[in-house]
Amino acid sequence: MVKPIPVLEVFGPTIQGEGMVIGQKTMFVRTGGCDYRCSWCDSAFTWDGTGKSEALQPEEIINRLDALAPSQYKHVTISGGNPLLHQGIAQLIEQLNERGIKTAVETQGSLWQDWLLAVDDVTISPKPPSSGMKTDWDKLDYFIDTLEPSQLSLKVVVFDEIDYAYAKDVHKRYPTTSLYLQVGNEDTTTGDQNRLLTQLLDRYEQLINWTMEDTEMNYVRVLPQLHTLLWGNKRGV
Amino acid sequence: MVKPIPVLEVFGPTIQGEGMVIGQKTMFVRTGGCDYRCSWCDSAFTWDGTGKSEALQPEEIINRLDALAPSQYKHVTISGGNPLLHQGIAQLIEQLNERGIKTAVETQGSLWQDWLLAVDDVTISPKPPSSGMKTDWDKLDYFIDTLEPSQLSLKVVVFDEIDYAYAKDVHKRYPTTSLYLQVGNEDTTTGDQNRLLTQLLDRYEQLINWTMEDTEMNYVRVLPQLHTLLWGNKRGV
Ligand code: SF4
Ligand code: SF4
Repeated sequence: MVKPIPVLEVFGPTIQGEGMVIGQKTMFVRTGGCDYRCSWCDSAFTWDGTGKSEALQPEEIINRLDALAPSQYKHVTISGGNPLLHQGIAQLIEQLNERGIKTAVETQGSLWQDWLLAVDDVTISPKPPSSGMKTDWDKLDYFIDTLEPSQLSLKVVVFDEIDYAYAKDVHKRYPTTSLYLQVGNEDTTTGDQNRLLTQLLDRYEQLINWTMEDTEMNYVRVLPQLHTLLWGNKRGV
Repeated sequence: MVKPIPVLEVFGPTIQGEGMVIGQKTMFVRTGGCDYRCSWCDSAFTWDGTGKSEALQPEEIINRLDALAPSQYKHVTISGGNPLLHQGIAQLIEQLNERGIKTAVETQGSLWQDWLLAVDDVTISPKPPSSGMKTDWDKLDYFIDTLEPSQLSLKVVVFDEIDYAYAKDVHKRYPTTSLYLQVGNEDTTTGDQNRLLTQLLDRYEQLINWTMEDTEMNYVRVLPQLHTLLWGNKRGV
């Protein structure tokens, strides 16, 4: 028995809507708890007390995945909150790897766990100024130095020009690490899907324009959140 | 002097809207001529006589790229038509590589050139039945066997269920090669951007549903064309 993992949602198969494996057919395991409090967090229910987590063993999580999609998944994404709070994920990753299933994790890069070394796709998403959080650059250096370039990417969510300037700082500090810029979703509660869609595409185009005009941002990728374009703010899809 | 390359458009910087480097800031060089005649070709002007090409040397192409985006590009996409018709692209790739600029090429996989080995991102997009074309599987085998897995991906555009079945055949034949499914654009001429957007997102959702329900399609990625979502059928963006 390992220390159980607090789990808020297990769902899928669906597509990964963002980042380095955008479009990938994947299962999601969303863990509870975060050491950050981003102003615009789109999964605040993982840490603000509104979501209820269950303490699960790795085997129990795998049983749920198997029940949801019998022999129908080859990729599992562990998201949060910050999954790096949980040591028990080591065994989950190990058991998935043994079955030939690839794994992805996203984290802000504030807490290290050795099990990250066994994850196929690690997205480190340091939080820009609009989040209200401070970046621990030494921690981030450790992530970038320790992980393999092929398993690693940086992702910065951009809401405004100050965030964009922050993304440039990230790119200057880690020029050889793949960098993804992602449009921030300003309105994580609206149910007006048409307005949200227009808004998101406008802001995506603006972020593209900033990047295209910028002589210092060249080897970067600019992406929307596909699930938000498709399904708005609905959870668990 | 090498045999000049027939060029229809040089444009950018813009984003790559599809496939394995989706979102990447890139320059585009579009070459003329194709050995295929796909029913739904969205760049028929490269081969149907409506577009006018210029015969350019690799240096001239690089000069145009430099003029468009002085010290502002690190990635060049060579598209067509079928760029594999042109031997002179070898020198273009070589000169870009020497300057530390990454390259991408998309081709249907019907004609081989050794210069493909020096391209960073090779997308092979065999054409599904709706195109009206026949796949030369032996040729395709050669592409898959000869290129490095890390530089290579397969992309199948899907318009209907018959195309989807074809995509499954591709995946079964090359199970370890990255496979991207892409929504076909049914209407490459409309200027009604709102209707097009709704249509494309509906069809994208349908393609996602097929893939999510399919126990034989697991390690695959499903993507829209981002440039079409943003800019509809406009050319040169
Ligand atoms: S790090 Fe992520 S989960 Fe934590 S508060 Fe910020 S956005 Fe939310
Ligand atoms: S292979 Fe590509 S360029 Fe050639 S006809 Fe088909 S879609 Fe058009």
